[in-house]
Amino acid sequence: MQRLDARRFDEGRPVEIITGFQKYPHGSALISTGNTKVICAAHVESRLPSWLSDGNHGWVTAEYAFLPGAGTERSRRGKTGGRAHEIQRLIGRSLRAVTDLEALGQNMITVDCDVLQADGGTRTASITGAFVALVLAMDRMRQMGLLDRLPLVDTLSAISAGVVENDILLDLCYDEDSRAEVDANFVFSGQGNVVEVQAASEGVPFSRDTFNKLYDVSLSGCDALKAAQKHALGSLWDEIVK
Amino acid sequence: MQRLDARRFDEGRPVEIITGFQKYPHGSALISTGNTKVICAAHVESRLPSWLSDGNHGWVTAEYAFLPGAGTERSRRGKTGGRAHEIQRLIGRSLRAVTDLEALGQNMITVDCDVLQADGGTRTASITGAFVALVLAMDRMRQMGLLDRLPLVDTLSAISAGVVENDILLDLCYDEDSRAEVDANFVFSGQGNVVEVQAASEGVPFSRDTFNKLYDVSLSGCDALKAAQKHALGSLWDEIVK
Amino acid sequence: MQRLDARRFDEGRPVEIITGFQKYPHGSALISTGNTKVICAAHVESRLPSWLSDGNHGWVTAEYAFLPGAGTERSRRGKTGGRAHEIQRLIGRSLRAVTDLEALGQNMITVDCDVLQADGGTRTASITGAFVALVLAMDRMRQMGLLDRLPLVDTLSAISAGVVENDILLDLCYDEDSRAEVDANFVFSGQGNVVEVQAASEGVPFSRDTFNKLYDVSLSGCDALKAAQKHALGSLWDEIVK
Amino acid sequence: MQRLDARRFDEGRPVEIITGFQKYPHGSALISTGNTKVICAAHVESRLPSWLSDGNHGWVTAEYAFLPGAGTERSRRGKTGGRAHEIQRLIGRSLRAVTDLEALGQNMITVDCDVLQADGGTRTASITGAFVALVLAMDRMRQMGLLDRLPLVDTLSAISAGVVENDILLDLCYDEDSRAEVDANFVFSGQGNVVEVQAASEGVPFSRDTFNKLYDVSLSGCDALKAAQKHALGSLWDEIVK
Amino acid sequence: MQRLDARRFDEGRPVEIITGFQKYPHGSALISTGNTKVICAAHVESRLPSWLSDGNHGWVTAEYAFLPGAGTERSRRGKTGGRAHEIQRLIGRSLRAVTDLEALGQNMITVDCDVLQADGGTRTASITGAFVALVLAMDRMRQMGLLDRLPLVDTLSAISAGVVENDILLDLCYDEDSRAEVDANFVFSGQGNVVEVQAASEGVPFSRDTFNKLYDVSLSGCDALKAAQKHALGSLWDEIVK
Amino acid sequence: MQRLDARRFDEGRPVEIITGFQKYPHGSALISTGNTKVICAAHVESRLPSWLSDGNHGWVTAEYAFLPGAGTERSRRGKTGGRAHEIQRLIGRSLRAVTDLEALGQNMITVDCDVLQADGGTRTASITGAFVALVLAMDRMRQMGLLDRLPLVDTLSAISAGVVENDILLDLCYDEDSRAEVDANFVFSGQGNVVEVQAASEGVPFSRDTFNKLYDVSLSGCDALKAAQKHALGSLWDEIVK
Repeated sequence: MQRLDARRFDEGRPVEIITGFQKYPHGSALISTGNTKVICAAHVESRLPSWLSDGNHGWVTAEYAFLPGAGTERSRRGKTGGRAHEIQRLIGRSLRAVTDLEALGQNMITVDCDVLQADGGTRTASITGAFVALVLAMDRMRQMGLLDRLPLVDTLSAISAGVVENDILLDLCYDEDSRAEVDANFVFSGQGNVVEVQAASEGVPFSRDTFNKLYDVSLSGCDALKAAQKHALGSLWDEIVK
Repeated sequence: MQRLDARRFDEGRPVEIITGFQKYPHGSALISTGNTKVICAAHVESRLPSWLSDGNHGWVTAEYAFLPGAGTERSRRGKTGGRAHEIQRLIGRSLRAVTDLEALGQNMITVDCDVLQADGGTRTASITGAFVALVLAMDRMRQMGLLDRLPLVDTLSAISAGVVENDILLDLCYDEDSRAEVDANFVFSGQGNVVEVQAASEGVPFSRDTFNKLYDVSLSGCDALKAAQKHALGSLWDEIVK
Repeated sequence: MQRLDARRFDEGRPVEIITGFQKYPHGSALISTGNTKVICAAHVESRLPSWLSDGNHGWVTAEYAFLPGAGTERSRRGKTGGRAHEIQRLIGRSLRAVTDLEALGQNMITVDCDVLQADGGTRTASITGAFVALVLAMDRMRQMGLLDRLPLVDTLSAISAGVVENDILLDLCYDEDSRAEVDANFVFSGQGNVVEVQAASEGVPFSRDTFNKLYDVSLSGCDALKAAQKHALGSLWDEIVK
Repeated sequence: MQRLDARRFDEGRPVEIITGFQKYPHGSALISTGNTKVICAAHVESRLPSWLSDGNHGWVTAEYAFLPGAGTERSRRGKTGGRAHEIQRLIGRSLRAVTDLEALGQNMITVDCDVLQADGGTRTASITGAFVALVLAMDRMRQMGLLDRLPLVDTLSAISAGVVENDILLDLCYDEDSRAEVDANFVFSGQGNVVEVQAASEGVPFSRDTFNKLYDVSLSGCDALKAAQKHALGSLWDEIVK
Repeated sequence: MQRLDARRFDEGRPVEIITGFQKYPHGSALISTGNTKVICAAHVESRLPSWLSDGNHGWVTAEYAFLPGAGTERSRRGKTGGRAHEIQRLIGRSLRAVTDLEALGQNMITVDCDVLQADGGTRTASITGAFVALVLAMDRMRQMGLLDRLPLVDTLSAISAGVVENDILLDLCYDEDSRAEVDANFVFSGQGNVVEVQAASEGVPFSRDTFNKLYDVSLSGCDALKAAQKHALGSLWDEIVK
Repeated sequence: MQRLDARRFDEGRPVEIITGFQKYPHGSALISTGNTKVICAAHVESRLPSWLSDGNHGWVTAEYAFLPGAGTERSRRGKTGGRAHEIQRLIGRSLRAVTDLEALGQNMITVDCDVLQADGGTRTASITGAFVALVLAMDRMRQMGLLDRLPLVDTLSAISAGVVENDILLDLCYDEDSRAEVDANFVFSGQGNVVEVQAASEGVPFSRDTFNKLYDVSLSGCDALKAAQKHALGSLWDEIVK
């Protein structure tokens, strides 16, 4: 098969991250991967929800939603169905996995991922963009005197891969995703360790060999994402990966 | 008093309208008035809700919401309180007032106004931007063969005015709005007729003379908005006002 | 045209206000304007909602709903749609505009307006009746030792006007309202200042001249409402307007 | 003990039923039993809900709610808790027990019982008043040509009784009800048969003898209710009981 | 008529109560009466809801729901309609009627009744089983040092009876219940006093004589339930009835 | 470390599956894995939801919830939070992956998984038990003449694994799960292919080597589950795996 946009099978879409897209949140980023665009906004609250306030650590959480104009069909607002719940829990867990929650102190950071334009891979783009907004919010906290250093143990990026007509493809666009036999999402730390892996057969169960190929192509595919994050974050990136 | 951004009392903020901000809706516009930014997306459905399907006319409706990152404090998602209800009903009524609903046929257009950044005047910016998205969606319908002409009787723009420390100010920013003694919103047709007027005292009731001054400054203030709409719509604008 | 009930164009419907219609609320009034009837009940709570308790002022709020038997078609209970939200916010803002919130102390008054019978003009009848219930509740507070004086800066009444078949009509009944080309609601203080103005075109935008005529007829139309309020409140009325 | 209003233990409160209290419903009644007042409105719909449309019979249902001003404390609107659910199911079942549902045809009648003023016994007053509104609505249906005769097999009235400080009392007011050791509600047909009986111990379980005394006093107590219903319905009453 | 399972008219179904069916709640019982099975779980919380915390007494409450697999048609989850509300209020009231709430101290016990299999009489089986779970939870509280003795004034059991084709039947199964002309539920204390009685005509109103026969058969029918409860509770039963 | 129940690290808990636990659903199974117990009920509907009725295939879906008595703390009913949504989507996807949806025809099967007792691994136990209930429901459909054969492409079982104090453990109980550094769930087809894999770091990201060890131990661990399923299903199992 031939990909619509003439990409190689193991090639991701062009990625761009604009910081400060929104003026008021503590951290803000707009991430584009091809036609998929997600607005990421991080807000800090110096008050934890009661069920968390044990005095020992902070918290990072996320929300995920579609803007009504994200697709050709209007997305109904406020319909946080099972899919959105599943995705926002994934984003939150991933962000927490690279955060030093104790060092965050009695603070909660909420990262909102609002899909401005949807062409496949919105959950992985959200994670990659949310990490940038999170770092910016932590930097702002440092400027406000709430933190001494960035409470992060590693960087974070995420990408999808799948099997379409028996080919292993990286970073599926919507059209490819809707025809995929296997759909996988990989969240990796900067050092290449696993933060989260989710792989599901859409048609028939698949072999371990297929799984390993999806793993390999995704791990390589994160390089371009890390480059874009580094470009967006500048010296903050170097601080984390040193 | 002196305005924070050194504007004259009767001067609106800089306005910019970007069309096609979202790729997939039938009509899309991003409007900025100063720091206030609203994403407007218009979707067409060729099916009316059952309570409207009397066979004689179409419908135009609107929804209005804040993105979580619109302000310094995070806006909670899906909390469509009374204020948002009131505003989205105003937007919908205003759009319908310049639409020839019979000529629209058995179609419904929904215009979503999502506030990306909030610095006062979000409801009037929404109306001004929503009109542009509406025209673009109607033009798309024409291209799809659903319409012969743009079913519009006039253009539409809206602006706020108020009284702050006894001064009549045009186009209040958030800081001014929160100190206003009188708060008014004017929606005018292109020919300068009234589509909707809403004026409310925030402190003590105000005189008819004050009301008339708010009216005058708002009517003049719409000129810059109309220029920006004309710039965004090009020949479509000329078609409507001919 | 000829009005169904043979009224002059600038003539309001007969108005009657019965106080103490309900025995238990702190203030109670039943207002009738023609066939429109609204039950107004004011309750005082000496506890403010947390978001208001800054120690400096009290609060007045309102709710508005239809009784199931208010019309020929049964109104479904508990369906507080956008229209009801819009109206109850208008009632609350109007009541607050004539209340001295600081003098009210750390108290909240809720005025419920339940439409017993609906024949047009329910929102303006609600405001006119709610003001009476509010005054009675404040008087009760004074009797209970919670207030020294009535914390009011002026009286309040409201009326609708509209354009039907090019005629300017005062106080539209339901049948007129459903055919109106322009629909306006005016809330005036006792001294004739503007508390709130809302005017909307239902068909085509309208001229400033039309707006001014609606204003004039509404201002005059409040005289009969004020007389009925004065009759209902007796010496309490004189205390406010002195 | 002595009853607050000096009634005999087996004496009900004064009862009054005003028909046509609301102008627009198909049947309307305001019932007062002492200080308890309930607005009853019956609407007819010639369309059954899908789960009922088996073609063989109609349906009668009821809703029950408090107006916000019914008591000294404001009742929150739209909080149809378990108690209201229980009561409205009781009202509906009772009305259906005296209705010939087959003769009603493919029609549904909804009777809304809105408590205007609450001083105990609101559920039984609702049943007694709802029956009057139901009959009036059926008579209207006959006038509209939807029915040939009143589809009723008997009349219906209801009253409460209880044990307070070991005394058997008829028709408890709120103060008595809140101190009752046993609380019972009896719904009887005009011929004195049981439509529904509900008796509950509020403190310790009670004897069969006590139950029988509650039964006796309630059956007698319905005479005054039936007289008021007959007075309100005039010849319609005679038609049913003939 | 002949009963499907060849029971005598005054014969209840076989009853079995298994304690400790769930390992973790403070009290647990599975009750079966014929094919009807209910899982009863009692949890203790040493914190009262704010509206109860007057310092003088504890509280017992109940919830009632169907498992999706309880019947041939799937029961939709989380649809606590009016029927379930009515039933769970009945269960709660009945349990409280035999509880010494003052002796319970500042504790709340919630008994959940989840219908595992439904073949009529689920509300009465719930009460009979919930009593066992309640006693077990109280015994656990005593073991935990929260109570000195079981705070119960009597035992509790419940059974249904009805009229089917003019016959008085005890303990109706679903098929009988759906054809019943009269439907009654009796809750008795161990000493044979009335805790709650509910009887309703499903067709035409019924006579006092019928009511008395339903009463008699139900009172006798509780003997088998009490035997099963005694068998399940062992010495705890003797402690209560001594 | 030593496991509380003295299991080897790569040893699952004892598993038992009881079919026909509920009498009325089309398929019913109770699965126990150690102290974890889940009630699985499958209901067939011969009507698809409108968004699925394209005429080409059927559907299998699942719901997952806790019974209030599943744990030491009472689980609040009807609180289907994000976690439950995520799990029930996983169960549904897994069941569909081994179902021949076209062969299922225009039928929908809903499998409800209600956790009776929770001690870790409820989602994987649900999948393993739900598969049994699904097969039984399909067999019932065949008996009813709705199907010619079991529309299944393979069998299905699921198990968890994790890292606790650097040890790779199979089938975590609650206590182990709450201390796990890595938490993984594997859903395998009978032939050992991947249906779904989900692995998440709870603390720091983990290596590919760790992931592979989790995979290996889980794949082996499914043998005991398959044996229990085969025991429960008898000849139906042989039909699928032939």
